[in-house]
Amino acid sequence: MILQTDTICALITPPGRGTVGVIRISGMKTFEIISKIFTPANKTLSTSELEHQRIYFGKIVDKNDLIDEVLVSIFKSPATYTGEDVAEISCHGSGYIRQRILQLIMQSGAVMAKPGEFTMRAYLNGKMDLAQAEAVADIIEAENCISHHAAMQQMRGGYSEEIKSLRDQLIKFAALIELELDFSEEDVEFASRAELKTLVLNVQSKIEHLLKSFELGNVLKNGVPVVIAGKPNVGKSTLLNALLNEERAIVSDIAGTPRDNIEDELNVDGIRFRFIDTAGIRKTDDAIESIGVKRTFAKANEAKTILFLFDPMESSPADLKNEILQLQNELGISDNELQKKVLFVANKSDALSTNFDMHSYDKCGVVILISAKNKSNLNLLKETLIERSGIDGVALNESVVTNARHAISLSQAKSALDLFLQGMEDGISNDLLSTHIRDAIYSLGEITGQVSTEDLLDYIFSQFCIGK
Amino acid sequence: MILQTDTICALITPPGRGTVGVIRISGMKTFEIISKIFTPANKTLSTSELEHQRIYFGKIVDKNDLIDEVLVSIFKSPATYTGEDVAEISCHGSGYIRQRILQLIMQSGAVMAKPGEFTMRAYLNGKMDLAQAEAVADIIEAENCISHHAAMQQMRGGYSEEIKSLRDQLIKFAALIELELDFSEEDVEFASRAELKTLVLNVQSKIEHLLKSFELGNVLKNGVPVVIAGKPNVGKSTLLNALLNEERAIVSDIAGTPRDNIEDELNVDGIRFRFIDTAGIRKTDDAIESIGVKRTFAKANEAKTILFLFDPMESSPADLKNEILQLQNELGISDNELQKKVLFVANKSDALSTNFDMHSYDKCGVVILISAKNKSNLNLLKETLIERSGIDGVALNESVVTNARHAISLSQAKSALDLFLQGMEDGISNDLLSTHIRDAIYSLGEITGQVSTEDLLDYIFSQFCIGK
Repeated sequence: MILQTDTICALITPPGRGTVGVIRISGMKTFEIISKIFTPANKTLSTSELEHQRIYFGKIVDKNDLIDEVLVSIFKSPATYTGEDVAEISCHGSGYIRQRILQLIMQSGAVMAKPGEFTMRAYLNGKMDLAQAEAVADIIEAENCISHHAAMQQMRGGYSEEIKSLRDQLIKFAALIELELDFSEEDVEFASRAELKTLVLNVQSKIEHLLKSFELGNVLKNGVPVVIAGKPNVGKSTLLNALLNEERAIVSDIAGTPRDNIEDELNVDGIRFRFIDTAGIRKTDDAIESIGVKRTFAKANEAKTILFLFDPMESSPADLKNEILQLQNELGISDNELQKKVLFVANKSDALSTNFDMHSYDKCGVVILISAKNKSNLNLLKETLIERSGIDGVALNESVVTNARHAISLSQAKSALDLFLQGMEDGISNDLLSTHIRDAIYSLGEITGQVSTEDLLDYIFSQFCIGK
Repeated sequence: MILQTDTICALITPPGRGTVGVIRISGMKTFEIISKIFTPANKTLSTSELEHQRIYFGKIVDKNDLIDEVLVSIFKSPATYTGEDVAEISCHGSGYIRQRILQLIMQSGAVMAKPGEFTMRAYLNGKMDLAQAEAVADIIEAENCISHHAAMQQMRGGYSEEIKSLRDQLIKFAALIELELDFSEEDVEFASRAELKTLVLNVQSKIEHLLKSFELGNVLKNGVPVVIAGKPNVGKSTLLNALLNEERAIVSDIAGTPRDNIEDELNVDGIRFRFIDTAGIRKTDDAIESIGVKRTFAKANEAKTILFLFDPMESSPADLKNEILQLQNELGISDNELQKKVLFVANKSDALSTNFDMHSYDKCGVVILISAKNKSNLNLLKETLIERSGIDGVALNESVVTNARHAISLSQAKSALDLFLQGMEDGISNDLLSTHIRDAIYSLGEITGQVSTEDLLDYIFSQFCIGK
């Protein structure tokens, strides 16, 4: 365990100008520092009288220079976020003021918090397990209903309890096997092999269930990949803009929602779609360009749906078949995959005469007729995308593994248990069996942080932003 | 007065991702809304038991969907920022969560706060006067020690008291003159004309003092304008970069300080300098270009200092004289102005031979020899800039008018009092005298908001960001 002798501080609200900024201090010296830098409006108040979960108004003064009038919130150990003594200073949201206050706090004995350090301390002090701590970062990242729900579920315990319970059962049997080792001359069997096998099979099946949920969890977290394909000038970017513009209108309602790469991401009913343009997928001899093409191929292969856009006035049903064949060659995917993935979308319905025969395309597959220009039938398109995403109808109350680290640990636990079962079949020695069980126990413990190394913690919490 | 029947809400921390976001609610329905959307961890707690300046931990749930675990801070009217009932919700710093919580609050009966509306309510409820309210915005904008100090001074009362007292004295006399008007047939004199004149002269002198401080205040707020002039290739941009790069290193220490136009702004010892490049000042026949040139001329004329950079190996003392003459013609300023403003800086000291005779330039004026490339002697240059800014040694405890609106009102009051004094000399009638005094009273009242119109308030508070 890491000793937490430092008192740490950081800005916990986003940087930039705003009405209010909040600076958090956590650690043994918190209230000592507050007494040094903060003068409550009620001057007769001494630091020892500060009450838990109370707010105090007053001034922060550096020598004779009034830095700001602030509110200080007091949280006394152990019922705090980190488990330590905590104070939060609400100051005016100017960079200058925040900097002066942080300097003053550090001069009074605190150090700057490292990324994730508040949450790491919460974990080290037993306020939450490792999976819960990781969920805190996911909650902040979550941009839509479903990924928010999954992160919130995980923060509130999620599958942690299930994993802890599986692990505890394995530990019990492991202990019994170790005991047999101590009495190895006497050939006793403390751990019933039949029961043990049943248990391991049960654990296996639960791990498999969780691993399967990761496929969905990954999509929840990173978005459903959709490839947009089609010949030039069929209206790919008009369609993308039509879809995104509506979204933009919604987004602009949400003051300050940061949107990275809005160009190719879209939230539909709380599900995030990532659109991959295939404009770049062309055979090329240029080495660097071909790296780009390979990358796009790889993405296209991950895609849940290939949205194949065409202009019915330019492409006859026969043309369409040929175009698809060409795309299939370029992507290098099987007929079967293609059939499962491709969604035909006929664009420019606005320019079609009323007696245009769309039924001639029926043999190609299901075709959705839209007008990207007039934004007609886009809802049907969105619904179809959701339907094909496999997310629709997900029982929101089920635990979903969204964290790649957890998926890796689950896989490792599964492999160890596979070796154990195989070893039992083969009648290998108890000490080898015991090793496999211990490997599984270790891997499961990594998820909740019941076992952890300093490296692992550093890796996990360095993914956080400072102030968390 | 505007009736504040609405309960308002807004995000008061900067937008963007962070650990924590804070949403403020203010108005009569605040606690009713909190009781609808917030479930305290201590479930037996009823809204009527919420205590002033206490923090409550709990959940925000929309139907069965857990939105977030939050802290709610309670502030009961009247001892709050706005004077109304206030609650502040600290939630996780995700755009999605903030949006959901704001939606929930609005569904429960609040409306989105307009820019500056919290502070406007604080003013309308007598928590601060108008000048203090304006200072709140200045505090957030302040990026350096001196402008921060000036804004803080103004927020804590500053010259408001002085203006209120001057105004009260004028009101007393105005009332006496009005009284005389009622008794005009009887030719009585309630208001001693001698005393009145003394008072008005006294008020005049104080207004002039404040107006004079605005010259400094404006510079504090907007930066000291410095024109960089010199022939091409003398190293103007190298010098600017050398000055700015040091600054950048400092700035990057301050997490998240937003820096607009860092390219041409520089903080030296807490004083902000704005550098204006004269590269664009050349005679031109192009209409559009000449607008740009005129604008640069105007800026150059405001400049406190013209930093005239030259390369001693290229320009002899005689050349330098000619170059300056040319600049003077281009800027259209007098000899006297030029002498007061120009600061000669000889660059490329690194390339000069040790026996180069810098003394030959002595007759041009004071010359500072630097090397922008090697960053040598830059400190001397900075010190000289500060010295010439007129800010050095400002008594920080003196009230400084930094607000252009205040300066305009002060000027208007001064003009009205000028007319009053002139009228008294000329022996104009009491009702005309009374009009001038009332004009002055009105203008002074505009500063502190003792008189205000809805238009004025809308104008002032629309300059704020939402959430303030």
